[in-house]
Amino acid sequence: MKILGKSQIGYEISDSFSSGKENSFKTFDPILNCENSFEIYESSDNDINLAVQKAKKSFSEFSSINGKIRAGFLLKIAEKLDLNRLFLKEIYCLESALPDNRAEIELNRTIHQLNEFANLISQENWNFCSEQKVDFGRKHNPKPHLQKYLQALGTVVVFGASNFPFAYSTIGGDSASALAAGCPVIVKSHPMHAGTGDLVAQLVLEAAIETNMPDGIFSNLNSNGIELGQKLILHKDIKAVGFTGSFMGGMSIYRLAQNREEPIPVFAEMGSVNPIFIFESVLETNGLVSQLVNSIQLNAGQFCTNPGLIILVETPKSVAFVEDLKVLLGRQDSQAMLHPNIFKKYSENAGKIENLESVLQLVKTKDLKANFSYPKLSFCSSKTFLESEHLQEEVFGAHSLIVSCKNELEFLKISEYLKGQLTASIFSNEEDLVRNSDFLKQINQKVGRLIWNGIPTGVEVCESMTHGGPFPATTDSRFTAVGKDAIFRFLRPITYQNFSTKILNLLIS
Amino acid sequence: MKILGKSQIGYEISDSFSSGKENSFKTFDPILNCENSFEIYESSDNDINLAVQKAKKSFSEFSSINGKIRAGFLLKIAEKLDLNRLFLKEIYCLESALPDNRAEIELNRTIHQLNEFANLISQENWNFCSEQKVDFGRKHNPKPHLQKYLQALGTVVVFGASNFPFAYSTIGGDSASALAAGCPVIVKSHPMHAGTGDLVAQLVLEAAIETNMPDGIFSNLNSNGIELGQKLILHKDIKAVGFTGSFMGGMSIYRLAQNREEPIPVFAEMGSVNPIFIFESVLETNGLVSQLVNSIQLNAGQFCTNPGLIILVETPKSVAFVEDLKVLLGRQDSQAMLHPNIFKKYSENAGKIENLESVLQLVKTKDLKANFSYPKLSFCSSKTFLESEHLQEEVFGAHSLIVSCKNELEFLKISEYLKGQLTASIFSNEEDLVRNSDFLKQINQKVGRLIWNGIPTGVEVCESMTHGGPFPATTDSRFTAVGKDAIFRFLRPITYQNFSTKILNLLIS
Repeated sequence: MKILGKSQIGYEISDSFSSGKENSFKTFDPILNCENSFEIYESSDNDINLAVQKAKKSFSEFSSINGKIRAGFLLKIAEKLDLNRLFLKEIYCLESALPDNRAEIELNRTIHQLNEFANLISQENWNFCSEQKVDFGRKHNPKPHLQKYLQALGTVVVFGASNFPFAYSTIGGDSASALAAGCPVIVKSHPMHAGTGDLVAQLVLEAAIETNMPDGIFSNLNSNGIELGQKLILHKDIKAVGFTGSFMGGMSIYRLAQNREEPIPVFAEMGSVNPIFIFESVLETNGLVSQLVNSIQLNAGQFCTNPGLIILVETPKSVAFVEDLKVLLGRQDSQAMLHPNIFKKYSENAGKIENLESVLQLVKTKDLKANFSYPKLSFCSSKTFLESEHLQEEVFGAHSLIVSCKNELEFLKISEYLKGQLTASIFSNEEDLVRNSDFLKQINQKVGRLIWNGIPTGVEVCESMTHGGPFPATTDSRFTAVGKDAIFRFLRPITYQNFSTKILNLLIS
Repeated sequence: MKILGKSQIGYEISDSFSSGKENSFKTFDPILNCENSFEIYESSDNDINLAVQKAKKSFSEFSSINGKIRAGFLLKIAEKLDLNRLFLKEIYCLESALPDNRAEIELNRTIHQLNEFANLISQENWNFCSEQKVDFGRKHNPKPHLQKYLQALGTVVVFGASNFPFAYSTIGGDSASALAAGCPVIVKSHPMHAGTGDLVAQLVLEAAIETNMPDGIFSNLNSNGIELGQKLILHKDIKAVGFTGSFMGGMSIYRLAQNREEPIPVFAEMGSVNPIFIFESVLETNGLVSQLVNSIQLNAGQFCTNPGLIILVETPKSVAFVEDLKVLLGRQDSQAMLHPNIFKKYSENAGKIENLESVLQLVKTKDLKANFSYPKLSFCSSKTFLESEHLQEEVFGAHSLIVSCKNELEFLKISEYLKGQLTASIFSNEEDLVRNSDFLKQINQKVGRLIWNGIPTGVEVCESMTHGGPFPATTDSRFTAVGKDAIFRFLRPITYQNFSTKILNLLIS
């Protein structure tokens, strides 16, 4: 297999390239600090229109085929990802600077997600909700026969995430859940790993052909700019959007979609600072410092669940704890970030915090090699934190800010002040929380996942996971991006009243 | 009991009236064509702020009390509605011109809804979703213990509906489901039946006091203008909105809410034309004509599920059918509409359609008495219908448009052309639908409820109901406004990782 670098529009490969001057781009190898060799062509307006038109045409058939058959398609994709593991990982690493073991974990996760959604829709009647039997016994007004089912929304646009080239991009969680639901998917491939996306898209489409899926259920479009995505969102035949990325990117997509003549659901996961509250009683727990350091610096901190805030009460013990943290984090090696732009942003955003007079820099190793970042640790008082709103903005990368409180009561104040988060962690014993139940109830209102004595990184992919949370962590806290329930973002209920089995079978198979 | 006419803000009755010139208004008796005697005072900005502040303060306690205890509150409201039946119905009829039997049905429905939501949250662990047990067996990376629960969103603003003073207003489906979820509710009372709303709110608050609910979980605000609602939606501490009403009203609320700094979920049910497709084979079914006429003219057609479009193929049989429909509908008496403004809008909107050259008026009895409308029936070709988009706009009232097709294939075209609908009905035999499965699949994409050989009015309140549908019927087709599932509009998942039972019990009771 080789990188095509062209729009894959259902079963067609585009020949029409954008008419702009720069009609192609290259991805970047952050480790070698140079462009990768292969060319990626910008998708044209024709490509967009053809992709949307084909998707629309395929929808009725794709959404009404039996779940087991659609599951066969997902399983076939998983099989092909597994078979092409080596080449996929090679390009993944070239385009992301992430190490091979991470590529391996992420590919396994992607395969696992496909298998899980396949399992879900293989279950007999997976899309059945409930039934009310007819009841002629009710006077004047007999109860009708009602059968409620779930139905796909229509074509979904998926925006790939920079930090998950496999698991939250081309055929990651958003695409897998949308396809499982019966929605055709058009991927706006992430330009930083467009080569990986191109390869994965080829495998998805091979799997679609081999399992006799209708043409148009999947397309992969490329662009290094933002206009392609905007045009997709504004296309009247797009019915929902999945996005994982920055607050700015997510909100611009959300606003566009909500101000359409027909607003459409957008699930945008926009990251968070994932506060870690640490109580005095557990500061000397064995391994706590190294657990935190591992979580902060894992893959250069490029996770939406990276712990960006550590909140504790200033005591002799906590001063020693911070010192240990500082020493261990200071010993960590530098790691290449996903892309020069991400490296630059990391330096800028961490710099903005570090340069504040009221913020102390505890670990501030100079990043000497292009694209390679060291972890950074800053420190401020609760007063400073509560006075400067931007201190709770995410710094994408291995930066954490320690917030030092005067007493436990300030944990409540900080939790009231915090915006919505994907996660919060509390390191404590039981008595600490019984004593501070107001704090516990307050932080509960701000998060999608609350962790006791554990780090936020390492999102378990299962039904009981919530990867979501109140705004600005996501644009809709009622859904999750990870786990089986992610499919509900792309399904709607429909009730069939007084339908015979024969007719219902024309719609639900 | 008597009408207070003042803002009820939790357990306080407001003394601060709006500073504007016209600081009070009166509701209207459409039958007598005169104002009702009692005065309703405009809520002030202070009232808004106090209501939101109290609601916010009550949230943590209200959302975390045991479901059975919150259910007791809902049951107590239902009991009080039942006990005050006579007076409530009297004011209801004075303010809406709806007949006593309708008031009775609607009050029973309101009580039923409260009981159903009380039943739901009385179930042990009603808000529990799923659990993943800890598994240390997994190498390197043990599975964490995850428990997923549903959690209330926060304060919900409910806009009362003009046509459901009981069942979709003060303590109607939106308020009942939000309170069941654990969300404090602030009602913007509908100005056309502010007296009824005032009485119902008193009973809700009495019930809250008697069942020891925290102060602030329910407030009722009054205004004859739109600014109060706008200010509520824009208040940063409001977390969701429920609305039932017109497309224009719903969309202005939706746009406001989505363009806030923090966008919030809005479920707006904005009505539809509820197309009825009739196949040749069933035209001579006994009672079909009278079934349709009953549905069209029930309570002056003032239902969001009123059948506004009847689509059939032109044949000798269908010509005779239309003639029968015309004769029977022409014999119906006039009925008072909800309000002079609604009567005026009905005349204007029906007039716009009737006055088109390409539209024939089949039943066009002159409305001679103020506020009393006769049913109207118009007729056009499929060609005309497909060429003028506004012919599929809802005329609120007893107006239906017959669309005459050349052949069955045009049913497909029309279903493609139709916007999203709450319901569609198909009158046919099985063979008709087997032969026209493309049409069936197409109309399936457009509706929240598909009815075979039945009329759309008479929305059954049960778990299997979907009262919702693709835009513009609602702003989010993934939810329903009727039935138990309506509660999901106001709940979000949250995952507790590695929590001990003791700590979890501080949050979930």
